[in-house]
This record gives sequence, structure tokens and C-alpha cells, in this order.
Amino acid sequence: MSEPAAIVALSGGVGGAKLALGLSRVVAGAELLVVANTGDDFEHLGLTICPDLDTVTYTLSGLANLELGWGRADETWGFMAALEQLGGETWFNLGDGDLALHLLRGERLARGDSLSSVTRAVTERLGIAARIVPMSDDPVRTYVRTADGPLAFQHYFVRDRCEPAVGGFEFRGIEGARPQAEFIAALAADDLRAVVITPSNPFVSIDPILELPGVRRALADAAAPIIAVSPIVGGQAIKGPAAKMMAELGMPGSALAVAEHYGGLLDGFVLDRVDGEQAEAVAALGLRPLVTGTVMRSLADREALARDVLAFADALRRVD
Amino acid sequence: MSEPAAIVALSGGVGGAKLALGLSRVVAGAELLVVANTGDDFEHLGLTICPDLDTVTYTLSGLANLELGWGRADETWGFMAALEQLGGETWFNLGDGDLALHLLRGERLARGDSLSSVTRAVTERLGIAARIVPMSDDPVRTYVRTADGPLAFQHYFVRDRCEPAVGGFEFRGIEGARPQAEFIAALAADDLRAVVITPSNPFVSIDPILELPGVRRALADAAAPIIAVSPIVGGQAIKGPAAKMMAELGMPGSALAVAEHYGGLLDGFVLDRVDGEQAEAVAALGLRPLVTGTVMRSLADREALARDVLAFADALRRVD
Repeated sequence: MSEPAAIVALSGGVGGAKLALGLSRVVAGAELLVVANTGDDFEHLGLTICPDLDTVTYTLSGLANLELGWGRADETWGFMAALEQLGGETWFNLGDGDLALHLLRGERLARGDSLSSVTRAVTERLGIAARIVPMSDDPVRTYVRTADGPLAFQHYFVRDRCEPAVGGFEFRGIEGARPQAEFIAALAADDLRAVVITPSNPFVSIDPILELPGVRRALADAAAPIIAVSPIVGGQAIKGPAAKMMAELGMPGSALAVAEHYGGLLDGFVLDRVDGEQAEAVAALGLRPLVTGTVMRSLADREALARDVLAFADALRRVD
Repeated sequence: MSEPAAIVALSGGVGGAKLALGLSRVVAGAELLVVANTGDDFEHLGLTICPDLDTVTYTLSGLANLELGWGRADETWGFMAALEQLGGETWFNLGDGDLALHLLRGERLARGDSLSSVTRAVTERLGIAARIVPMSDDPVRTYVRTADGPLAFQHYFVRDRCEPAVGGFEFRGIEGARPQAEFIAALAADDLRAVVITPSNPFVSIDPILELPGVRRALADAAAPIIAVSPIVGGQAIKGPAAKMMAELGMPGSALAVAEHYGGLLDGFVLDRVDGEQAEAVAALGLRPLVTGTVMRSLADREALARDVLAFADALRRVD
């Protein structure tokens, strides 16, 4: 029997997309299935906007705007300028080229296509060899609990710049949402090599995927090691509000706390070298730690981390 | 009693918008009500696009692209480039700034606002003093009859570049469509000074307005003169397929044929100097002719024609 080759990567936006890109460059295209969080999706100006799915798509196609961390490179902003002139809502920036994806998707969803099918058409058109799927074709919408009541995620994240203190999260619609079919099939398949939880925000990027009905069970039953990469390095999130959220939720803002948060779901946990002293405490949780460089500044960094994570998974599989 | 001041102008796109602009510059803002054809409107990429309404709006706000004859000046095309990259439908060009109006409108229509109310908000925001209203808040969709069956207007006009021979027209939904309330009120008001049928396409820009239930009756009952300006000059349409349509419909492509088409609806008919020899035949139809310069190249031309038309209306009113 050949070595198992399939990799499932759970991803939010920027950090997750970076590692997904690294993975896509060190394995054969179709071996990688990237499952993107859709809890951040929202309806705006009549469009269905899927920030994480699109960041992964733009990143793996080479179209991503690396300076902004979202949207397309070489973007223009004529739409936003005209929208402001007309008195429209301008708190969410939509680039002119980015709009094409939103309108194309909206039209196809409206005619009854699934988000998976639209995503497949777009990623194939853009020449992406890896498979990218939404975590579900059913809408799930993340709300952030605040002192003033629940806030739709993009209102919290973009409009209010993550300023409100977070008291918890709601993933509306998740009880009735089915995990995407290829995702669940990949977890159950014999050729599964690793499940990689990318260094995305545990609360709003990864938890919505994990909380879909049946996903935790499918992960527990999966034959391959499940490995998370810490999004917290040296007590800080590389990008985004993860560390701020942890403080507001009364958790230490540490890699170890992320490992505890995922807990028994994991087989291995990857920490940055600056957090090397937490490796023992991670091991004490019953997880195998890997200490390596996790900050992905260059493309070489992304590929190196991808190789480290896969080698770690292969080592864990042989030990078991 | 003061002189009646209100002017109702029926308009399609470019030619109509030119005269509407002229009128807006020679009378006080609120005295002018421009009624825009919405039979050209269509649904595309999930948007509701109103080409004539928007051309009038862009023209009267100074935003119009005078080179293209549609859309906004200083437009960028990042959306179309990305749409093509993604494999979307690219036969209908949508500029980046133009999209803002379509999305804003779509969002407000979806939440239950009327097309009139969205149009009022947009025109006020753009500082347009004249009132611009859609001919109806109920959808009417023009289809062009061809040998291959009925074609939705924009498919005929833009996608197929007016190539199919025209056998007639259908204004779908018109039986149940109510003329816009301000339009009908203005026709019945004591202060009506003139109704101006601008030099737009008689068949697809003006007839949809005239065929709305009650409009012909309201025009017949209106106290003010009804004047049409010929869109045909020297046997040619200044812009668009009017002359080609007339040939295909078995009509002479002449100003006189336009006068005959409108017939008893009119009190006066404005012909260009190059068609001056048709004035007698127009008079023989029972219409008062006015021969003047009707080709609007400059802003001064637009204002001059507007003044000529209004003076003509005032003269007709005093004669009656």
C-alpha cells in the first residue's frame, strides 16, 4: 500500500492562507484540500462576501494583495469612490477587481449553484491545482458577544475595528449546517496523511469549522494525525485580534493556551522557537510538541513550515 | 395667474438626456420633470441596471461619459478585467464607478424602496435640481421581435449590436404597470407649460412611456402643448438604431415618418434645418412644425434647442 498522501488544511484568512500556500507548493496539487471558514461570510450591498474563502483563493492563485492582507493585488478603488459620492455604506472596502468575484458568485448562488460549485469553477478558472472548499454550503454566520449584545462578525472586525471587548461567540445556523461533502469524505479516506489546523484565529476561523455537526467526530475517527500550528507567537497574534480576544476571554495569550483550547482534538502542536519553553507544558497536555520557525515572512518560510508540519505528521503517524 | 412653468420631458438615453440637460439649464431646477424610459432596464449579474435613467442622471449631474455616450466619465474597468479573468459574462460593460449606482440601487430595491425613491435619493445626493423619475416603479421590459423570436432589449442592443432585423416590439409587464405618480400629476397640473418628447428612439425609448396605461389619455387631457423633437436628421438617427428599425418596419427613415408615428398625440413637431422641406408635410398631418437646428454637439446647442422648444410651446399655447 502506498503512503497516504491527502492533506486536509483548515483555514481562516491571512495566516491560514499563507500555510495553505506553502502546503500547495510542497505537495502535488490535488493532494491538498483546503477547507475555508465561512462563518465570516456576510451579506453586504446585496452581495455574499466570503472573506476567508476569497483570501485562500487569491493567495493560492497568486492574485492576493500581500500588503493589505485581503483582496487582490494591483487593485483599483473606483467603485468605493463612487459609492461614497452616492452616499452608500463605505465601511467595508471592496476593490474593483474583487467585486467581479462577488457578483459572479452572487449570480450563480441566486440561480441555485452551491458555494462549493461556484468555488470549484473559480479556482479551476484561476488555475489552482489544490482543492479549496467552503466548510459548508449552508450559511453559518459568526456573531461576537459584546456588552452591547451580539455583533455580526464583519461589523465587529472591520466596521468597529475589533474594539468591543469579546464575551464569546455564536455561530448562527451551525446546528443545521452540513459539513462540506469533500471535507468529510477526505477525513474518512484511507489515504489521509495529515489534518493541519493552520495558524488562523482559533475562535472565529477554526472553531466554526470544528463546531459543524459531525466534524469533531470525523476528526476523532480520522486515521491521520491532527496538527495545529499556533497563531500566537511570543504572546502576540501575527495578525488579527486572537491575542486581544484571549485576554478578554480570561485566557493567557500564549501558544500553550491555544493548545489547551484545541485540547484532546490534536495529536501534535507546532510552536514557534520563541515559545520553545512552552513545549513541555504542551507535552503535559498529552500532545506532541514541535518547536520550529512559524513566522511566515517569505515564500520560502511558507514552504519550510509546510514541510516541517508534514514531516511532523508523518513522524507521529509512524509512532502511533 | 402666473405663466405655467412646469415642463415634462420624456426621455430615453443619450439624445434625450442631451435635451434634458439643455432644458435643465434654461429653466429653474424644480420646474423640469424628466421621465425616463425603464423598458431598457434589465437584470444582469444580480444587478438591476437602468440604462436610460442612469444616462439622464449622469448627464444632469455632469458625471456622464460624453465619449462613450453611457456610463461615467473618468471611468476605470478593473471589474470587467477581473470578470473576464473569472469567466463571467462580459458582453455588457460596467465601469467600476458605475457599479456603485447599480449596487446601491439593488440593495435599496431589495429592502423594498421604490425605484422612484432610490432615484430621488441619488439625484439629490448628486445635486441635480431637476426632478428625474422612472416612467414607472413597476418593471416593464422591452423585447424586440426578430425572425428568431423575441430578444430582450439589451441582448438585441448591446450583445447583438442591433444586428437582428426588427419585426416589432413587446413591452412586457406594461399592462399592469402604473405610470409614476409625479409624472401623471404633472400632466394634470395647472402649471404645465410643455410636454417635450426628446429626440430619443420613438420605438424603444418613448413608446414604452406612451403605452403605460393611462398615459395617452393624460397627455390628451393635458392643458399644455405636446412637442416632439425628431431623432431623425437627414434620414439618419444621430445615435442608435432608430433609422435601421424604421427601414426594417417598412417605414421611410425620415423625420416626417416620426411625426406620423406620434400622430395626433402631438401639437408640434421640431425638425432639423436639413429636413426643412418636410415641414409642409408635417403641417399637413395637422401638427405645427418648427424648423431649427436640432443637432446638439455643444452645451450651447443643447441650451439653444431647449429655448427653441420652449418658445415654440409657448407660442402654440397662446395660439390655441
